[in-house]
Amino acid sequence: MCTKILISRIVSYFLFRKYKVYIDKTIELGTQLTPKFDANGLIPAIAQDAKTGEILMVAYMNREALDYTIKTSCGTYYSRSRKKLWKKGEQSGHIQKVSQILVDCDQDCIILKVAVDSGQCHTGYQSCFYRALKKGTAEQLEFVAEKVFDPDKVYPS
Amino acid sequence: MCTKILISRIVSYFLFRKYKVYIDKTIELGTQLTPKFDANGLIPAIAQDAKTGEILMVAYMNREALDYTIKTSCGTYYSRSRKKLWKKGEQSGHIQKVSQILVDCDQDCIILKVAVDSGQCHTGYQSCFYRALKKGTAEQLEFVAEKVFDPDKVYPS
Repeated sequence: MCTKILISRIVSYFLFRKYKVYIDKTIELGTQLTPKFDANGLIPAIAQDAKTGEILMVAYMNREALDYTIKTSCGTYYSRSRKKLWKKGEQSGHIQKVSQILVDCDQDCIILKVAVDSGQCHTGYQSCFYRALKKGTAEQLEFVAEKVFDPDKVYPS
Repeated sequence: MCTKILISRIVSYFLFRKYKVYIDKTIELGTQLTPKFDANGLIPAIAQDAKTGEILMVAYMNREALDYTIKTSCGTYYSRSRKKLWKKGEQSGHIQKVSQILVDCDQDCIILKVAVDSGQCHTGYQSCFYRALKKGTAEQLEFVAEKVFDPDKVYPS
């Protein structure tokens, strides 16, 4: 009896492994968009300038934001702080025009190739990544970009 | 008595708001690296080719992986599936040489500008983002890159 259970468990294990490999291959090498949202229903999305390659920002999308982005070609996210759909540029008017949507191998991250007509960071910089770690230090940042707009004029408090 | 409590609450609210604005400004416009790890102790990190601007992969770092990357200038992550430090290239020998580490405004995302001598995706592509959504469709992916190595030779099963 014990041998029967053991054999059954070994068979189940190998069948599960084979099934997992099949599922992984389908996700990784298939042509069906099956985005993997996390436990909070979100997937990270990188907005990258289609022309220069500069990474402008990283935000999160829920299913609704992704569908809206696909439908409208306007970069749309889910604001985790405001807990609602966030159409980028809805306040400033400077939207992200999406020319291409890429997905990674395990479909848990998205890139939006975008065209923008203004700085994308609420602090006034073109990109949110305006600081770099200073060479030879472990914690010291230095600014590597110049402001391109005055945030107090665009987002008055 | 009620008026006193009300006034005290209003004062607390405005003091808290002022304190929050101060903290946000320090994180956003300061020169101290204070990475915001999530509830699982992780922060997303994007590896971007320093020369071409191509986004190669997105993975996660814990404190140890970030410290190791800063110390060694070799792209190092935390593998969520294997639950351990993941020195990129430890199996294949093709490491990521980090030339710059950037952080975003709210310090919850990192970019590693890297030089690589081989494809970075375990599926055989240069970048993990080798598929794009087909124009005019909502779910149909198309391959937009060619394989640069044979994964079966690099990662034999």
